[in-house]
Amino acid sequence: MMRYPNGSKKRVSRANTAPASSADKYSNRGMTLEEDLNAANIYYLSRNIASIHKKPTPVQIVNVDYPKRSAAVIKEAYFKQASTTDYNGVYKGYHVDFEAKETRNKTSFPLSNIHAHQIAHMEQVIHQRGLSFIIIRFAPLEETYLMESEYIIEYWNNQERGGRKSIPYQTVKDKAYTIPFHFQARLDYLKAVDMVLEKLEEN
Amino acid sequence: MMRYPNGSKKRVSRANTAPASSADKYSNRGMTLEEDLNAANIYYLSRNIASIHKKPTPVQIVNVDYPKRSAAVIKEAYFKQASTTDYNGVYKGYHVDFEAKETRNKTSFPLSNIHAHQIAHMEQVIHQRGLSFIIIRFAPLEETYLMESEYIIEYWNNQERGGRKSIPYQTVKDKAYTIPFHFQARLDYLKAVDMVLEKLEEN
Repeated sequence: MMRYPNGSKKRVSRANTAPASSADKYSNRGMTLEEDLNAANIYYLSRNIASIHKKPTPVQIVNVDYPKRSAAVIKEAYFKQASTTDYNGVYKGYHVDFEAKETRNKTSFPLSNIHAHQIAHMEQVIHQRGLSFIIIRFAPLEETYLMESEYIIEYWNNQERGGRKSIPYQTVKDKAYTIPFHFQARLDYLKAVDMVLEKLEEN
Repeated sequence: MMRYPNGSKKRVSRANTAPASSADKYSNRGMTLEEDLNAANIYYLSRNIASIHKKPTPVQIVNVDYPKRSAAVIKEAYFKQASTTDYNGVYKGYHVDFEAKETRNKTSFPLSNIHAHQIAHMEQVIHQRGLSFIIIRFAPLEETYLMESEYIIEYWNNQERGGRKSIPYQTVKDKAYTIPFHFQARLDYLKAVDMVLEKLEEN
């Protein structure tokens, strides 16, 4: 089994949840947030709804072997820290940029899931009038939200000044948009993006 | 020295060109197109002009070693074909997406530099109203152009129907935008993007 340098890609066990009988939200069981987002992006692309992709894991390649008559093999490489968020693309003329994080926590979203360089990146995207947000999954609750980066940045800056190190679950529930489960798209997060766009167009 | 599975990242020797005396276009000598674009993107980011990044090289990781008290080492991995273009980001609210290609050819840009899946990606980006283009460098001429993907797609489709396998240099010169050399940004390609935007706003 492959392991990653950070915990964001760990498969979250949901073996403790009750068995499901139909295509309700429990159909999602056993899929990581990343798998759900990949399924959504493939669905969006196939229907010409949006072109959004996960960026490859950044790797520092040190040594490559070139065996005769077969593909190059990377023999030594190291994980690098990403300088941006993991997902971006274009939807209805909007630049869309986001990070996706899963937490096992039920009562708050720990800011330790986010890195300083990602906050800086979110600020850059907002400055250029892109749509910047985080998709947060509370795995034990099987609830997934889209929270605009402005809130994340606010909590982050407050933490820097000695404030709390997490965003309370209730704040996420109040400020963020619930992402509905969709049979084909799985995690139909563009529904939540549409709500952000509606709000922007009202202002 | 590291080698890549495709030729797009090869360093182009310019040892045959005449020596330069000042900060004119020859100051660019010895820098690959990729290095120039990285320098431009760092400059744009540092001045809050745009947030545009090169995507990491996609790698299929097969085996990772976890030595005690040191970083994880990737022991076996393979290069994967990218499913998108190499660069994207956001500029003045516009989603910007492009591929960069250097050719040693002086008379035409060979379409063999582009892959079918990249053409499909360009079509998706255009459909979502993003700005899609290719940055083409004719290395022996030390000339770099921004060509909108619409032209590339046109030539590509024509090739599929048995047409020519390259875009003539003169067509690039006529249809594309010259990218000026800039002392700080090096390859100041957003100047060419501005010209595309002006044209779009006129229509």
